[in-house]
Amino acid sequence: MRFISFEHEGRASWGRVEGAEVADLGALPGAPADLRAAIAAGALALDGPAPRLPRASVKLLPVIPNPGKILCVGHNYESHRKETGRAEVAHPSIFTRFADTLVAADDPVIRPSVSGDLDYEAELAIIIGQGGRNIPEAEAMSHVAGFACFNDASVRDWQWHTRQFIPGKNFPGTAPFGPELVTPDEIADLRAVVVRSVLNGEVMQEAPVSHMIFPIPVILAYVSQFTPLAPGDVIATGTPGGVGSKRTPPVWMKPGDEIEVRIDGVGSLVSKIVAEA
Amino acid sequence: MRFISFEHEGRASWGRVEGAEVADLGALPGAPADLRAAIAAGALALDGPAPRLPRASVKLLPVIPNPGKILCVGHNYESHRKETGRAEVAHPSIFTRFADTLVAADDPVIRPSVSGDLDYEAELAIIIGQGGRNIPEAEAMSHVAGFACFNDASVRDWQWHTRQFIPGKNFPGTAPFGPELVTPDEIADLRAVVVRSVLNGEVMQEAPVSHMIFPIPVILAYVSQFTPLAPGDVIATGTPGGVGSKRTPPVWMKPGDEIEVRIDGVGSLVSKIVAEA
Repeated sequence: MRFISFEHEGRASWGRVEGAEVADLGALPGAPADLRAAIAAGALALDGPAPRLPRASVKLLPVIPNPGKILCVGHNYESHRKETGRAEVAHPSIFTRFADTLVAADDPVIRPSVSGDLDYEAELAIIIGQGGRNIPEAEAMSHVAGFACFNDASVRDWQWHTRQFIPGKNFPGTAPFGPELVTPDEIADLRAVVVRSVLNGEVMQEAPVSHMIFPIPVILAYVSQFTPLAPGDVIATGTPGGVGSKRTPPVWMKPGDEIEVRIDGVGSLVSKIVAEA
Repeated sequence: MRFISFEHEGRASWGRVEGAEVADLGALPGAPADLRAAIAAGALALDGPAPRLPRASVKLLPVIPNPGKILCVGHNYESHRKETGRAEVAHPSIFTRFADTLVAADDPVIRPSVSGDLDYEAELAIIIGQGGRNIPEAEAMSHVAGFACFNDASVRDWQWHTRQFIPGKNFPGTAPFGPELVTPDEIADLRAVVVRSVLNGEVMQEAPVSHMIFPIPVILAYVSQFTPLAPGDVIATGTPGGVGSKRTPPVWMKPGDEIEVRIDGVGSLVSKIVAEA
């Protein structure tokens, strides 16, 4: 199944994608208020006489608009680790984003006025279903509600002001997330899924999930050792080699550019770059 | 004025400290539900026939129990920068904590079962009053609702798994915060205020605010360039030299230890260390 968060006639809701329609599950009496709450309530399979809306009539929101935690993994594909010159490490590199950095698939990415060094990072995001602490690797995948495309767009000069990445990863409007939450049963072979970025029609990054240095169960087990996970929490699992900042000369995203994160079976997340107003 | 967040007879509230009593402002009809909401509503000066409770009868909560953002500054006193061997940098080093790491002044710090390397970091925390983006340095102090003691207790081996500090800074129950929010008018000369940690009665860290590498207005201006600040957000402004991990031999906090953050005019924040259950 595939789920979206959206606004329709000024009301925020969530629903299941059914071809060219959306079952507006948030409109059912007593339904959870948003997709995060629906996941927490185990209500994704909710059914009933939900209004069907033309998908083209709704405005998308970030697929989880209000995650409690957003954790991101750095240098998690060998091709990206090598291009950044990082040493091999025994543990995943983890940083965080605030929820106000998230962008809907229908909205542009904002290049901040203080920097021209805006880079793309195509990533597969995990959305947590059942929360927990100290989740064993062997049980990790049962804690995943679904997957989505994520663009961990980075303001590189601010990311590199010091060793801590937080500033360059937290400008508002820099993290496209969606369009859909795709449940795990839709993905036949997760390791074979290819994560790509496409800038103005040109493939810039391309690697299968099997190239991750730390596989998803390892990431989930590691993260849940230091922080409790809850339904709707998001983990962006790292980006393949080919980022703009490590090219010669560097490739920065400019206003008017179109950046796509395309992940087999998960979706296509296309964002226009605009200059900060 | 001095404010606390607390529980009384199972109800969460907030109020103004009046000697040995607390004016339970959260109990007034129509009052904001918590101290963060009170700050957002500009309601700290709220008065009226609030019930007076003996301070000893309430259980403290983290002084802001639910901040939207917690930002921390690394290596912000020259004495700490030198002991960590970090190069001088042109910008503050910023990392984040989740709100579930916060601990009330009445509660213990939890040493996680996966590590013995638990260290103290005495810090002055700022609590944001009026939010904003791109706050100019010259106006920064007018965005501060108040100050509080903060112990940025750190699980050093996890902090150093990679260059990103997040894992070692986000174990639950590692960030004592309080006991009180102290409004700026209570502090005659902020630069002269001394920040100390005291472990089992021995002073371990001690430096005045004037020793900060990046003064508070610079921190606020920098942070608000990359992320919007909102009422109740927290910025921990860094720790003086003398941390346990840089001593020879290292000093780690053990179950039964008592660690105090003591800041002139701001308060005393004493925490017992307990082992994770």
